[in-house]
Amino acid sequence: MTTQFVYAFQDGDGKNKHLLGGKGANLCEMTQIGLNVPPGFVITTETCLTYLDTADQSLPDGVMAEVREQMALVEKKAGKGFGDADNPLLVSVRSGSAMSMPGMMDTILNLGLNKKTLQGLIKQTNNERFSYDAYRRFIQLFGKVALGIPDEAFDKPFDEAKKRAGVTADVGLGAEHLKEISELFLAVVKESTGRDFPEDVFEQLEIAIKAVFNSWGGKRAVDYRREFNITSDMANGTAVNIVSMVFGNMGNDSATGVGFTRDPGTGENVMYGEYLTNAQGEDVVAGTRTPRPVVELEAEMPEMYQQLVELRNKLETHYKEVQDYEYTIEKGTLYCLQTRNGKMNAAAMVRTSVEMVNAGLLTKEQAIMRVQPELLEQLLHPRLSPQLEDKAVAIGLPASPGAAAGKCVFDADRAELMGRAGEKVILVREETKPEDIHGFFASQGILTSRGGKTSHAAVVARGMGKACVAGAEGIQVDVQKRLAMIGDMIVKEGEFITINGGTGEVYLGEIETVPPEFSKELRTLLSWADDIAELKVMANADTPDAALQARNYGAMGIGLCRTERMFNDTERLPYMISMILADNLEEREEALTRLRKMQREDFKSLFKTLAPHPVTVRLLDPPIHEFLPTERELETDIKDLLQLRNGIHGIDVLFNAMRLLRPNNEKQPPHPDMPFNPDGAQLVEEAIAKKQHMLAKVRELFEVNPMLGHRGVRLAVTYPEIYAMQIQAVLEAEAECRKEGLDVQVEMMVPQVCTLEELRFVKTRVKVLQEQVEEEYGVKLEFKFGTMIEVVRACMRAGHLAEEAEFFSFGTNDLTQATFSFSREDAENKFLPLYTKKGILTDNPFEVLDVKGVGQLMGLSVNWGRQTKPGLKIGICGEQGGHPQSIRFCHHIKLNYVSCSAPRVPIARLAAAQAKLTEDEYEVTESIQAV
Amino acid sequence: MTTQFVYAFQDGDGKNKHLLGGKGANLCEMTQIGLNVPPGFVITTETCLTYLDTADQSLPDGVMAEVREQMALVEKKAGKGFGDADNPLLVSVRSGSAMSMPGMMDTILNLGLNKKTLQGLIKQTNNERFSYDAYRRFIQLFGKVALGIPDEAFDKPFDEAKKRAGVTADVGLGAEHLKEISELFLAVVKESTGRDFPEDVFEQLEIAIKAVFNSWGGKRAVDYRREFNITSDMANGTAVNIVSMVFGNMGNDSATGVGFTRDPGTGENVMYGEYLTNAQGEDVVAGTRTPRPVVELEAEMPEMYQQLVELRNKLETHYKEVQDYEYTIEKGTLYCLQTRNGKMNAAAMVRTSVEMVNAGLLTKEQAIMRVQPELLEQLLHPRLSPQLEDKAVAIGLPASPGAAAGKCVFDADRAELMGRAGEKVILVREETKPEDIHGFFASQGILTSRGGKTSHAAVVARGMGKACVAGAEGIQVDVQKRLAMIGDMIVKEGEFITINGGTGEVYLGEIETVPPEFSKELRTLLSWADDIAELKVMANADTPDAALQARNYGAMGIGLCRTERMFNDTERLPYMISMILADNLEEREEALTRLRKMQREDFKSLFKTLAPHPVTVRLLDPPIHEFLPTERELETDIKDLLQLRNGIHGIDVLFNAMRLLRPNNEKQPPHPDMPFNPDGAQLVEEAIAKKQHMLAKVRELFEVNPMLGHRGVRLAVTYPEIYAMQIQAVLEAEAECRKEGLDVQVEMMVPQVCTLEELRFVKTRVKVLQEQVEEEYGVKLEFKFGTMIEVVRACMRAGHLAEEAEFFSFGTNDLTQATFSFSREDAENKFLPLYTKKGILTDNPFEVLDVKGVGQLMGLSVNWGRQTKPGLKIGICGEQGGHPQSIRFCHHIKLNYVSCSAPRVPIARLAAAQAKLTEDEYEVTESIQAV
Repeated sequence: MTTQFVYAFQDGDGKNKHLLGGKGANLCEMTQIGLNVPPGFVITTETCLTYLDTADQSLPDGVMAEVREQMALVEKKAGKGFGDADNPLLVSVRSGSAMSMPGMMDTILNLGLNKKTLQGLIKQTNNERFSYDAYRRFIQLFGKVALGIPDEAFDKPFDEAKKRAGVTADVGLGAEHLKEISELFLAVVKESTGRDFPEDVFEQLEIAIKAVFNSWGGKRAVDYRREFNITSDMANGTAVNIVSMVFGNMGNDSATGVGFTRDPGTGENVMYGEYLTNAQGEDVVAGTRTPRPVVELEAEMPEMYQQLVELRNKLETHYKEVQDYEYTIEKGTLYCLQTRNGKMNAAAMVRTSVEMVNAGLLTKEQAIMRVQPELLEQLLHPRLSPQLEDKAVAIGLPASPGAAAGKCVFDADRAELMGRAGEKVILVREETKPEDIHGFFASQGILTSRGGKTSHAAVVARGMGKACVAGAEGIQVDVQKRLAMIGDMIVKEGEFITINGGTGEVYLGEIETVPPEFSKELRTLLSWADDIAELKVMANADTPDAALQARNYGAMGIGLCRTERMFNDTERLPYMISMILADNLEEREEALTRLRKMQREDFKSLFKTLAPHPVTVRLLDPPIHEFLPTERELETDIKDLLQLRNGIHGIDVLFNAMRLLRPNNEKQPPHPDMPFNPDGAQLVEEAIAKKQHMLAKVRELFEVNPMLGHRGVRLAVTYPEIYAMQIQAVLEAEAECRKEGLDVQVEMMVPQVCTLEELRFVKTRVKVLQEQVEEEYGVKLEFKFGTMIEVVRACMRAGHLAEEAEFFSFGTNDLTQATFSFSREDAENKFLPLYTKKGILTDNPFEVLDVKGVGQLMGLSVNWGRQTKPGLKIGICGEQGGHPQSIRFCHHIKLNYVSCSAPRVPIARLAAAQAKLTEDEYEVTESIQAV
Repeated sequence: MTTQFVYAFQDGDGKNKHLLGGKGANLCEMTQIGLNVPPGFVITTETCLTYLDTADQSLPDGVMAEVREQMALVEKKAGKGFGDADNPLLVSVRSGSAMSMPGMMDTILNLGLNKKTLQGLIKQTNNERFSYDAYRRFIQLFGKVALGIPDEAFDKPFDEAKKRAGVTADVGLGAEHLKEISELFLAVVKESTGRDFPEDVFEQLEIAIKAVFNSWGGKRAVDYRREFNITSDMANGTAVNIVSMVFGNMGNDSATGVGFTRDPGTGENVMYGEYLTNAQGEDVVAGTRTPRPVVELEAEMPEMYQQLVELRNKLETHYKEVQDYEYTIEKGTLYCLQTRNGKMNAAAMVRTSVEMVNAGLLTKEQAIMRVQPELLEQLLHPRLSPQLEDKAVAIGLPASPGAAAGKCVFDADRAELMGRAGEKVILVREETKPEDIHGFFASQGILTSRGGKTSHAAVVARGMGKACVAGAEGIQVDVQKRLAMIGDMIVKEGEFITINGGTGEVYLGEIETVPPEFSKELRTLLSWADDIAELKVMANADTPDAALQARNYGAMGIGLCRTERMFNDTERLPYMISMILADNLEEREEALTRLRKMQREDFKSLFKTLAPHPVTVRLLDPPIHEFLPTERELETDIKDLLQLRNGIHGIDVLFNAMRLLRPNNEKQPPHPDMPFNPDGAQLVEEAIAKKQHMLAKVRELFEVNPMLGHRGVRLAVTYPEIYAMQIQAVLEAEAECRKEGLDVQVEMMVPQVCTLEELRFVKTRVKVLQEQVEEEYGVKLEFKFGTMIEVVRACMRAGHLAEEAEFFSFGTNDLTQATFSFSREDAENKFLPLYTKKGILTDNPFEVLDVKGVGQLMGLSVNWGRQTKPGLKIGICGEQGGHPQSIRFCHHIKLNYVSCSAPRVPIARLAAAQAKLTEDEYEVTESIQAV
């Protein structure tokens, strides 16, 4: 069997990239689907390898014979002659391996030029300057690539010639100058190589082919392959593509252009692109002439335009994807030079996907696979107006996407005050705490000078779908003076700023934002996704507003309602605090009764909003000291109050005292005009006593490692009355909804569980309260009782927990912390960036689920849990639940649902469908398999 | 087949407790091995059940016939007649089921007494008072138990009679009084039951048997069985034991006594016990006569003494255990009334075990199983002298066993100062910190007023084998005033106190302590244990002293050397601090070089001490801020210094300033006479600057959850030079030892590993340094490189870590924290006590390995690790490694070694052998099985 070295484009196998290289295979495919590609052929990668193996650097026997044969066919098709003095065929010689290695190997254009054919080119193009320019470029490129002459050898005569001509830019050189330069370049070649520049076009071709082959083993290419881990089974040897040159500058029946098969900005199904008559591609790049929109071609060359429309249709029909293509018209003939998949923005991707399905070009499955889920993020948050030319004054971390503009405020109380007055505000803090929550509600966006992408500010803002820039270190906030320093600039309260949560940029002034687009095409695409996905997508939401947003985004329920967030409300925190400070059960229960009534109304409203979809209520999770001020804050307050008492006070103290002396409500913003009453000695004494009481409690509750502390179900054991309050509120809310005939689905889950006994402890109390509420309301309750799986031990005991739990919900935020022994906020500030930088971890496991560690634990838990209770409902409510890669894993281990923040619901819906469609390709890690 | 209702002691099956009850079976066994048990018989539990089933409350047909038959045999053996007026046979009637139910059912003594036989008893005992006393007791007991007459009915006439006799105590009653009372009691019976007290002895007997049977179904017994979960397959029905009474008060040829087969205080193989001639057991209890040592019996009744020696030998030969027995001599006949296994202290248990093996009574295996490992604790720490009658003034938690007396000191610096001066001191602190370590070294024991059994003080003290009482809340320490308040008492520095770390008690003054006894018998027993055990026992030790102690206790190497403990030494901490504070790499490396040289010497000394046993060095683990003072401390210091600068200072400030101004050494104790130099303004400025620098660093290093923070291998990634220093020190130490021809075994392990890449990161650096050191010293290094498994993710990735690690060491302290998401110090102070109290957890998982959760993770890791590397060496170095129950689990999952604090090494050695001997009985949890 003799080996075939060379394939014509009409013969090569368009799928065989290994043999023909990527570019060669593409050209074959284009040719064979009937596109008018300039004729040409490919020399195989095998030829390259054989050549590189020979000792004497000669092409294998028969290669040049096949090349000549193919060249004859090309001549025939092109109607030109290789080396023909009147109508010369010129070709490009390009490398192309199975893997793209951009810039690594060289290309030679216009091969076939020599003194004779140059004249033919002049005649054909009627453009002496162009022809000489092409000629001198060919000599230099051939000299460098094929003959190994350094660039500098050509640069010197070229620069001298320019000087002589008195021009500084290359474009200033005329035909005569370029002619002279060509001569000088021929002399350089002679001097450098000791022989004349080859006039024989086949000699040129053979030298060029060898040069391309040699470049495969060159240092640059070898280094590149090593750097990017391209092994020989991925790409071995390079092919050589020899394509006839076509010229769009052969007169007014010639042109060159680029096009998209659809509008890449909007996705609209129209002709899109631009062209230049009598021009080469370089003319577009050089910017010396302005290209015209493609629709004008219809008037200028109606026949050509018609062919272009056909080309476009052919491309889409064949590739089933929006194409970005290049073409040249040479003397009334349209050539397609190149085509590739078009890059589009999210809106266009979504619209074209839906429309291509409707046009029968794609199946729904293909349309779903076509859109990267993360891309949808663009569509769901306000964006800064693209005309923007303002300069960012500071950059922080892009902590929660979207853009927001508003007046600066530096504390949550004032944010709330101004927000209520209808102002748009941006809350600017060094960092935020749970007690700032009312400020979040009132703000358009959040800006902090400390903390990472998972700081409190970032997490809460993402949960609310508000823009957030975190850790903008260039900003110094002075709360007392109500201003911030950004570099040397002072920004005072009430001045406008704009933040871009998608990039981390901060701007002065109010910059226009573009509202999000949740188009009907997106709805359509996501409804297809829902039909395919096996995972249900739920949302993490704590308020009726957030719940409503989640429903709008297509959430199938609330997978996580963090009840403690409700306590941070201005109205409620005081009761929470008095509950914590209560010295006896009576006082505590009085506060609890008030809280219970408030929570009941919250839950009712949530259940109603979601009915008939489920709402999963998580019982109290954080350690209770989180509801109190810090030790430092209290010490400062007490110091200020003591100074006040002792008469040592300046304006600052006075101002602060006004805040401290507000009678009933710690969080109520001060009335700006509130006078300081110097007779209020009694008030001062009471405030001191109260703060000291609080301080003592804060010290008592102090924990060395709050993350691993007295929280979640542990509170149920130590303060059973708090849990009882919440449980009762949930059950009463369900009862009231049922009395109204609503089909609500209530799920109650216990956080931080690590033993079966804890779960039983709570369940016993739930049963008692259930009987009580059922009797009181005269309805049958139907809620489900489940557990968070967020403690490692819960994973190990999953088989047992499943005896008492009706569902599991993986809390992968905490589970990741415990699995890695990483405290999230410490890790992200201290060493995690270095970990990902040094490649010890590929991703931040708090953003992308760690499949090998945390995922392994989840897999074990699912197996053990379902061994006990085969149909056990299992979901995930950690932040990773909204991440496509994590969703793929969740599908793989057969979870029933993922729950994520509302703005990620559309992303998750799409990702869930993709997970189903690609489940067979999912790479199963060896350890999960081992289970 | 007819059922046998009654068994004579010589016929009943001594192993059949279900049929004969525990007591009945024992009596049968004793009789059948040739002990002279008073004759008697058992009525079976089946008889009881049949009786209780009958409607008419009559004994099953034939029971009384068998009883009479047996009674005849008893009469014959005893040489007495039941109901005989001259030589009456009296019996006791006792219940006895398969499970012991102490106090739940009744006993009747002296049954067979009536007006006639009473006279016989008087004649036989020659003791009218005794006989009437026995009679009136029998009437009351029979009346109550068999006839159901309430005690109160007897109490009234009894009290009236005492009043008439003019006595207050029962012993004041004479024979005449007791005779009168007997008459009154007979009248009570007649009045209460409407009939005379039964004179017929068989009628008495039948009524008594029925009463015992009825008591099985009585409320008391039923409640007891419910409370203690005694089910009917554990015990069903009660047997009745009828035994002839024997009397030690029948003259000077009669006696009563108790004995141990060996001395229970020392274990010495001698006759041990005491007796009283012509006395009943009550006489011993009443304390009216003083019993005499058993050896005196040899002179008094040589024949009887000889029989007693034989009895003792027979008991040990048969029971193969030290026996605690009771006997009575009635008219020259020795009766053995009861025998059971003797309770002994640890020293006696160990000595008897070894001697009984040597005597061929026990196998080595039996000897090993006989001693509870925890008991050895007694032998390894000083104990308080048992004569002690002082009252404890405070009680804390028994945090580290042993007793210690010394002068109070309230800070570590002064402890060191006084310790160096040769004083015995007790370090008394609110709580301790790593920087107090030099105070630990200098002290006899540690006393804290805060913190639990696993507080820093407790853990470190246990590690050092020093006594510690932790969390003695009644004590308030005032460091400034150098005193402590214990209740109302003031204890000043230098006053003696004594603490008992085994009980938590604190005493004023110096109380004598008894040094620990590591006897030759203990050495023998433990060497047998080592031969049997599969688990090797290593020690956690950080200093050559501790290593030496560990070797003395039989440790087979050091399983954990915490290198950071070396940094806390007074000499070194300043270098550690300057290393941390260094602003550039040069400064840091200068400090590191000094530290490296010190560590190299430390390691050399350790390696030498242990050669040829392994020493496992753990590289730096704690977050580096642990080496710095706290933010609070620095703030206070700075405040004090500023006051000093501003001239505002009192005595306190002055004193503190003296400490603060020590030029070079943060930790050097102040010279008490050091004068304050008021001209040292420059010194003050420098000190302020230095403290402020330190404060800035401390704030920079602050972590929210230090337990999950920037520590262990994470430091290797962020500060590679620190790890490099330690690695180099280890390798140089090995090289120097090898040059000296020592066969050292060095193991290096990396803490907090959670990814394979981390391990590779360190290993790469180790390899480089290894080459460097090998070249420099010209020796080949042979150390092993391994990883701690203390992060959950490391468990999940164990199969991969095994690719790079030559051994695993489970760090179950941290692993337990991460598995439960419990911060140990927070949990133990906040909610863990309630968890164990409410039964949510059976044990504190930081003391006893949590087999179901943490153990499950360990089991998975072992399986996966050995799948990759079948012979992988795996151990545990958490505190639980010294706990017998945990050791059993470690044996079960086939670990190679456990490593624990030196004082627990002997316990662990014994436990390891027991684990092997009982491996077949180990209950495998279902989830470990599932792996």
